[in-house]
Amino acid sequence: MTIGDVGRILFHRIPEGEDLLPAIRKAAEAFEVRAGAAIVIGSVATAVLGYFREGQYSYLTFNGPLEIVSGSGNISISEKGDVIAHIHLAVSDENGRVLGGHLSEGTIVGVTAEVTLIEAKDLRLLRKKDEKTGLNLWHLS
Amino acid sequence: MTIGDVGRILFHRIPEGEDLLPAIRKAAEAFEVRAGAAIVIGSVATAVLGYFREGQYSYLTFNGPLEIVSGSGNISISEKGDVIAHIHLAVSDENGRVLGGHLSEGTIVGVTAEVTLIEAKDLRLLRKKDEKTGLNLWHLS
Amino acid sequence: MTIGDVGRILFHRIPEGEDLLPAIRKAAEAFEVRAGAAIVIGSVATAVLGYFREGQYSYLTFNGPLEIVSGSGNISISEKGDVIAHIHLAVSDENGRVLGGHLSEGTIVGVTAEVTLIEAKDLRLLRKKDEKTGLNLWHLS
Repeated sequence: MTIGDVGRILFHRIPEGEDLLPAIRKAAEAFEVRAGAAIVIGSVATAVLGYFREGQYSYLTFNGPLEIVSGSGNISISEKGDVIAHIHLAVSDENGRVLGGHLSEGTIVGVTAEVTLIEAKDLRLLRKKDEKTGLNLWHLS
Repeated sequence: MTIGDVGRILFHRIPEGEDLLPAIRKAAEAFEVRAGAAIVIGSVATAVLGYFREGQYSYLTFNGPLEIVSGSGNISISEKGDVIAHIHLAVSDENGRVLGGHLSEGTIVGVTAEVTLIEAKDLRLLRKKDEKTGLNLWHLS
Repeated sequence: MTIGDVGRILFHRIPEGEDLLPAIRKAAEAFEVRAGAAIVIGSVATAVLGYFREGQYSYLTFNGPLEIVSGSGNISISEKGDVIAHIHLAVSDENGRVLGGHLSEGTIVGVTAEVTLIEAKDLRLLRKKDEKTGLNLWHLS
């Protein structure tokens, strides 16, 4: 477990046409967030959502416009010090049907995306490669 | 981007039969929250969920009881100083099927709704009318 | 309404094969969190999700692997002082289809589950049995 005091809260709007995942990562980098929670709402033009089974991701692409019903996740860092945004996304279509998965590159913001990050002060939330799964899992002291 | 220190955290229960969206807004107003994150769970008797395309919202109405699987969003203010709760909602039916969209007026609380607001201290998260989309988008300094 | 200053933020990873709901509760207990918000992502091998109607829960079981699209909720305490984790979950399958409900015991973690708790400092978020519904509802001063 890793625990610290809550620090800053950051609100960032990502404009139409941007790639959502790298844009969240860049916002965290710009403010040197090394550990935190993330909440995202808004809309997407396209969603690329991952599903993990038997050691690998498959990716589904859904074309919109789609509402971002929820974006939930966290900000951490790799052993090299790179910022990682791990976000899971649920989106809804014109009939209210919801699709979801692991937010992946190529998910393009629709009208707007509103990102809120809640930071842990003076904390580094580290990920390390897990041999068994091949995933970068939280490595908590 | 708008950034500040995290301030208070507020827990508010909305009773059966109330209109969820205005009730969240009133809770934020009562405690003078001008910027913050919102998390909601509970249940609804009826959900009215918006879907935005080509400059306008269409609204879907779903009758329950439905679980609120997730309510995610934020508290901001308009140029006039009015509190705005922007929340996206996912609800589930007796088969676990999930429906979602932009939380709209007329969504009636079922047994209970539990709202958590996490406030940014001394911050005003401003929305302004966007000419292109007609939406009130975050206007961040 | 119950309101306080935000305190600590806690990141906890729950490993494969554990029962998700009691594991979240134990993490809150270990750090003496008595009031807070919870955000969960990751994956499950099995999800047991509750749906409440007419005074009782029915439970649906879904077999995975399934992504945890969102886990949202809160940490509170009972009158006896027991920690309660009240979490609603949305999960997605290989086609991106999303299922949701009230997170119940028997939901088994898949590869990993990442839990973030945001604590209210010096606050006790109390639940009391509600006579009408039989549920433990927030009892806010």
